[in-house]
Amino acid sequence: MTLTLTALPGIPLIRPGDDLPAILAAALSRAGIRLEDGDVLVLAQKIVSKAEGRLINLTQVTPSPRAVDLAGQVEKDPRFVELVLQESRDVVRARPGALIVEHKLGFISANAGIDHSNVAGLWGNPEDWVLLLPEDADASAERIRLGLVGGSALKLGVLIIDSHGRAWRNGVIGTTIGLAGLPALVDLRGVPDLFGYRLRITQVAAADELAAGASLLMGQAAESTPAVHVRGFPYPLREGHLSELIRSKATDLFR
Amino acid sequence: MTLTLTALPGIPLIRPGDDLPAILAAALSRAGIRLEDGDVLVLAQKIVSKAEGRLINLTQVTPSPRAVDLAGQVEKDPRFVELVLQESRDVVRARPGALIVEHKLGFISANAGIDHSNVAGLWGNPEDWVLLLPEDADASAERIRLGLVGGSALKLGVLIIDSHGRAWRNGVIGTTIGLAGLPALVDLRGVPDLFGYRLRITQVAAADELAAGASLLMGQAAESTPAVHVRGFPYPLREGHLSELIRSKATDLFR
Repeated sequence: MTLTLTALPGIPLIRPGDDLPAILAAALSRAGIRLEDGDVLVLAQKIVSKAEGRLINLTQVTPSPRAVDLAGQVEKDPRFVELVLQESRDVVRARPGALIVEHKLGFISANAGIDHSNVAGLWGNPEDWVLLLPEDADASAERIRLGLVGGSALKLGVLIIDSHGRAWRNGVIGTTIGLAGLPALVDLRGVPDLFGYRLRITQVAAADELAAGASLLMGQAAESTPAVHVRGFPYPLREGHLSELIRSKATDLFR
Repeated sequence: MTLTLTALPGIPLIRPGDDLPAILAAALSRAGIRLEDGDVLVLAQKIVSKAEGRLINLTQVTPSPRAVDLAGQVEKDPRFVELVLQESRDVVRARPGALIVEHKLGFISANAGIDHSNVAGLWGNPEDWVLLLPEDADASAERIRLGLVGGSALKLGVLIIDSHGRAWRNGVIGTTIGLAGLPALVDLRGVPDLFGYRLRITQVAAADELAAGASLLMGQAAESTPAVHVRGFPYPLREGHLSELIRSKATDLFR
């Protein structure tokens, strides 16, 4: 059993309004890859967010009093904090240098995933531009999936990932923020183990496992390989949703 | 750029004292894989723990008063809880059904990684047997690495993984518990991004990204593919340690 991940070469810098399915189809073609049933494309959120025009210029943002107050606590730009609050449901931790929130899409992340790096901006000083996550990354993944599948019966998964920090451990890892056409969580409860016991609580976050593995090929800095083709994903494809991965607040021991 | 992960077929059930490097070398040979510089072998902790004889029969365990008390809180077998405490430095959360601890090796996990499933035991009732993690998984990885490398100059990484639950998100993912010969954390601080900014805080948990990706091929239940060969790991190999991945208690906002 083999899992093959291929970084697609030659993806250009993405600008608002770009046709990502067409760009991905061209990159696949250049890489000599013809999509097959069961394949998955893993995309860095930045290309999706840029294509969707989620660029914001900080000089256009007026911070609320709450943002100004919180910005003082976390020692960040009040305009940046205003955007983080607009993109969030709840502040989970605020400390100097750290602002951890529950994003509107449900996951917990630093700064609601808003980032300065690798953003050129549209005019003025590039330092003033930031990039928000897609408004609904499951919907973004589904649009890209449909764009690639066209009218065919191809079974394809599309996974949108970002780099997230974790509780307890150093370093970021690639993590799912939206998906279409593949399972996020695979339920093995009730499947017997090698000796016939019933596994009691095993649910595998298959999409997050793939997100992390594919992230290895994306780099984090100057290398620009924001799309990875995956062949050999070992679970059957089906419709999938980010919500499968989000632990409800009531059952979360670590907020 | 391609990352290829291959589950090694035909690994037998491992018993205490088994020679894992020899078993892995045979499995690689059967798969037609000749190790090359930069390759990594990812191993499920269970085969390492079993080879190291980390099987314990619960009928031989006498719970301490503290274990009896905690077992009542978490609704688990007091003998099992005794072992969890012996393997831990600290209890992080205790709720009915959940016992989250800081393992002696430094990471946070449920039940200190002690598991019933896929354990046959050595005598008596298989239900009485549990499996502890390796005593020092970095050292285990290094022994296996040296066993495979022999006297050669081969640059090989060995990564030992377990399935861990996470804060905030549903489902387990493959996670590093020990390693040798590859970086756990890759520091990109100071590397310029596409537009020449300096990335400020990016450290990538490269070993955990690989752990998660390789875990996809291991299954969690009756499939027995506890070893995965990796070609194309994109970071230079070097000596590495689990401790790189462990966030210090002082900087951890989520204990």
